[in-house]
Order: sequence, then structure tokens, then C-alpha cells
Amino acid sequence: MGVDVGGTTVATLLVDRALNPCAEITVATDLSSPDNTMEGILSAIEETLARAGTNAAELAAIGLGVPGKVDRTNGVAQLAVNLRWYDYPLASQLATRLHVPCLLENDVRVAAMGVYRFDNPFKDQNLAYVSIGTGVAAGIILDGKLLLGQHGLAGELGHFIQDPSGPLCNCGARGCLETFVSATAVIRRTREAIAAGRASVLADQAPLTARHVYDAAAAGDVLAQEIVDDVGTELGRALRNVLLAYDVDRVVLGGGVTRAGARYLAPILAEWRRQHETSALARALLRPEVLRTADPARNMGAWGAVALAAELVGR
Amino acid sequence: MGVDVGGTTVATLLVDRALNPCAEITVATDLSSPDNTMEGILSAIEETLARAGTNAAELAAIGLGVPGKVDRTNGVAQLAVNLRWYDYPLASQLATRLHVPCLLENDVRVAAMGVYRFDNPFKDQNLAYVSIGTGVAAGIILDGKLLLGQHGLAGELGHFIQDPSGPLCNCGARGCLETFVSATAVIRRTREAIAAGRASVLADQAPLTARHVYDAAAAGDVLAQEIVDDVGTELGRALRNVLLAYDVDRVVLGGGVTRAGARYLAPILAEWRRQHETSALARALLRPEVLRTADPARNMGAWGAVALAAELVGR
Repeated sequence: MGVDVGGTTVATLLVDRALNPCAEITVATDLSSPDNTMEGILSAIEETLARAGTNAAELAAIGLGVPGKVDRTNGVAQLAVNLRWYDYPLASQLATRLHVPCLLENDVRVAAMGVYRFDNPFKDQNLAYVSIGTGVAAGIILDGKLLLGQHGLAGELGHFIQDPSGPLCNCGARGCLETFVSATAVIRRTREAIAAGRASVLADQAPLTARHVYDAAAAGDVLAQEIVDDVGTELGRALRNVLLAYDVDRVVLGGGVTRAGARYLAPILAEWRRQHETSALARALLRPEVLRTADPARNMGAWGAVALAAELVGR
Repeated sequence: MGVDVGGTTVATLLVDRALNPCAEITVATDLSSPDNTMEGILSAIEETLARAGTNAAELAAIGLGVPGKVDRTNGVAQLAVNLRWYDYPLASQLATRLHVPCLLENDVRVAAMGVYRFDNPFKDQNLAYVSIGTGVAAGIILDGKLLLGQHGLAGELGHFIQDPSGPLCNCGARGCLETFVSATAVIRRTREAIAAGRASVLADQAPLTARHVYDAAAAGDVLAQEIVDDVGTELGRALRNVLLAYDVDRVVLGGGVTRAGARYLAPILAEWRRQHETSALARALLRPEVLRTADPARNMGAWGAVALAAELVGR
């Protein structure tokens, strides 16, 4: 069983011994208290088992992707601000109730494992999965293994300093990558431009999502296109740094906004082409085939959690 | 035997079975032709052996650190612009003449191996060695192994985009890290400021090196101090990105200019302290003890080449 625990929803995925899907559900995350969040996850797991006509006694392992900082060894969610979990012993709580071994890892890293194992058409052994949502972070696979780092911070690309004179980031620094390219940043930039008097079909859109901005750009909205182009330029530069850091075979972009697929990639590739014009290094490094979006039809978080559970039982 | 092949000098280091040094020499690099460069290396190896009263028949292996892009598998120096080597088969040339197995690797990566094996007081298994010279590049050690990457580009931090409106880089892009912090950049910035009318004790210094700028800053020269501080600020930001990328235990700075030691580190640590003021992430990530300079008394390039040779014979 894989479980993707998010600040909005909990998604489960039950697979058989051959890793074929048997049942999956998505429920709203219960944020009424830290323990209730755990109870909600427990109920979702039991409901999924019931739908497949089975029970916890038949379960080999549970893998869980959890936002924020995770102590994998002790199964503790150390810092998940959106869930109000601070040093919450999720693995032991679930294992006590279900009598099934449980393994936790950070959600973006788990999704990277999902991409590596279940959405890897070129069988890449080295890839960077970059998640673009409320924040920006990456899971890095080198020689088929997740890069863990010493303090759980390897791949926290969202806090790369992109421009020291940029917007203030939640982390307290200025101009972090995520203040330019996260879904949150896309919404903020659109609202700021409209408030400053720019015309846009998005002026009356409420609630406004990053996806609305991408759709408006595709429909010819000038402001939305400007923002989309600028996000692509900034991401094009940031992904150059990612390729120089890890020299991976593939960079896979995921998160709701990347479901726009080729439309999402186009402005990034445009920035890469601009760099190609003057630089042999850029031509060698920034090859369009390196870049793709994750399969939008699969929940990589849940599939990655399945990969984590499979790892726990040596499959 | 380890050999550090540079654009200015070739440095050899012969060690015994216990890896204790037996003999070492440094000679000027013969740049009169690609073959003559190789012959000069061969002579330096033979001269070193003669000084130790031995010969090539007693040699187990030769490791060589070579600038630029290296095909390790085939022992070919693919692109060493300063040596005018383009696809030069150095390993096979030397092996044919000396009947000793030879292994090549990029010089900065080799120096990282040297730091890991011979200048590692804290026994770090994860470290980034950042070389600051004419250019800027890093060798990354993860779990005791060199990160190779897929195209020999992993760790090419010098071409991280630091500021897209910055100076034009040799690579053809704008604002690469090395245009701000390399020894070349320090010299260029000093000359430009003096040409623009700034007063400095360095006005009549010829030839001017980056070390002169650091010495002038220490002696109270206002312009030199400004440049040194600014290099520290830029490096402080770039090393944040390095720590976010790899989450290593230690960042070790090497190259001639870092021989200033604590004076070189001070402006970097000042930038980190500024980030600490507003950011818990910065306080967790940018701990002063993470940062040190390489041992200035040892040639890490030659010692790393010894480590490479030792690896070849399983020591």
C-alpha cells in the first residue's frame, strides 16, 4: 500500500504482489488535529483494503509520502507545517494499529521514486524529479538510488537563490527560485499585475489558480502569456543549474501546473534556445530531450509510496 | 605515481606501498605541441623515479589529473583547451612507453579525491571540493564516491547562472558564477575599478594576481576590501545552492587564492550571517563549521592523482 499524504487530500493505492493496482481512494485530509489527521489516514487505508475485499493482515508493507522534513529511520514526520505535525511518530502509530511495517519519506522524494520506477520510459538511472506546486523541490535519483543528503535537504532547489533582489521567500531569504516559479508565485504575480491596472481575462477569476493563468495564456491573454514566458525563462536558468549540479539523463517536471505538458515546457525550451545561440556548453547541456513532464494520468506520489513499500519488503 | 597536469606546471608525486611520499617534482608544462606536452610529462615521471632510485618497472599505476573534459574509460583527454589537447589519447601513449597502467580524470575531480583521502580530518563521506582559480568547478564526493554524472559535467558550478545581467562568460552565457568569483574575475574587477579612476595600492602592481588583491585588502586597501567582500557575498550565495543541491557534510575550498585561509572565508561567512538574521533554513543549512579551506601545504591535485592510481590497483 502506498499513501500520499497532502495538505488537501490523502491518496491511497493498493497493489498486488505483481505491483498491479487493486484499489485506490482519495479523501480530504482531516486537519482538525494531528491525531485526527493520522486517524483519517488509517480510515483511508482500511477503506481501500475493504474495497479490494481484503484486510491489513494481508498487507506486506505501507509506504507513506509526507510533506516537509522526515526522519526516515524513526518513522517520524519532523516538520509538516501544513499538517501541524511536529515530530509526529506516524510510522509507529500506524504500525501499532495495523501491525504492518510502515516507511516514511518526504513526499517529493517519494514522487521521484515513483517516476523512476513507474514512469520511466527511457529506463533512466539518473534523473531529477522537480515538483512545482505551492513550493518547489526536487527528488534526485543517482544510479537508481534516491540522494538522501545529510540533513534531509538535498534537492531543496526551491531555495536556490535565483535573484538576490527578488521577492521575500517564506524561508526568510530574498529571491529564492520558488518566489519566481511556484504555482503560488504565478498567482501572486498575476494578482499584482491586475491590481496595478493590467488588463486580463483573469481580472474577475476567483479563486485564481496557476492553471487558470496557463489556460488564459493559451487562449491569447497577453498578461498571462508574459507571466508564463517569464516563469519559463527563470525555470530554464534554474534547470541549467540542476543539470550542472547532477548531470542527470533526464529532468522530469511534476505538479498540477505541469499537466499543461508541452505548453508548460515551451517557454523553458525557448530560454534554452536563447542560451544555445551563444554557448557551446549550453548546446551540450541543455538538450530538449533531457526535459519532460511526468505522466499526468498517474498520481506519482501514491505510486512512489508503493515503490517505498516495495523497497521495504525487497521487491 | 600521481601526476597533476596543469596549463602552467606538471607536478608529480611518487608514493610507496603505504602511500608515503618518496619523491616529487614540479616542472613547467611544455606547450610547444600536444605530443611535446606528453613527452614533458613522461620526462617528469622518469625524473621522479630516478630521484627515488627506482624505475617504471617498479611502478604499480599512474593516476593523472588533466584539465577539461576527460574520457576516463578510454583514457582520452577530450578537451583541454589550455594544453591544446583535443581527443588526445594520453593514457595509451604513456602506457605504451612505460608499460604501466594509467588512469585519467578531470583535475578538479582528482583534487576532490585527494581531499577526501588525504586532507579529511573529520572523515567526511560527503563533501564538495570547490576549486577557485582561472575558472571555478567542483568535485563532489557522495558516500565516499566521486559523482561522475552522465556527460562529465556534474559539479561544473562555475557555470551556474549567478546573475543573468552579469559579465559575459567564456562559455558564452552571461553572469556565470566564475565571472564573479574566479581569480580571473578578481583581477578583472580590480583593473576595471582602477581604470575607472579608483585609488588603490594595486594601481602600479604588475603582474597583478588575485593573491595581491587579498593581500592589499588585509593591508587596508579600500578598493581591494570592497572586491574581496563582494566575492565573499557572491560565493556565500553560490555555496548555499551547493548545500541545497547535495546536502554534503563539508564544503572545502581550494586553489591558490584560498591559501589566504580564514581571511578568504571571512566575507563568505559574513554573507551567511546576514542570511541567518532572517531565515531558519539559512541557520540550519549555512553552519560555519561546514566550510573550510584545503590544506595549503599539500598539492591536492598530485595527492588526488595518487588516490586515482591507488584506486586502479585496489588500494
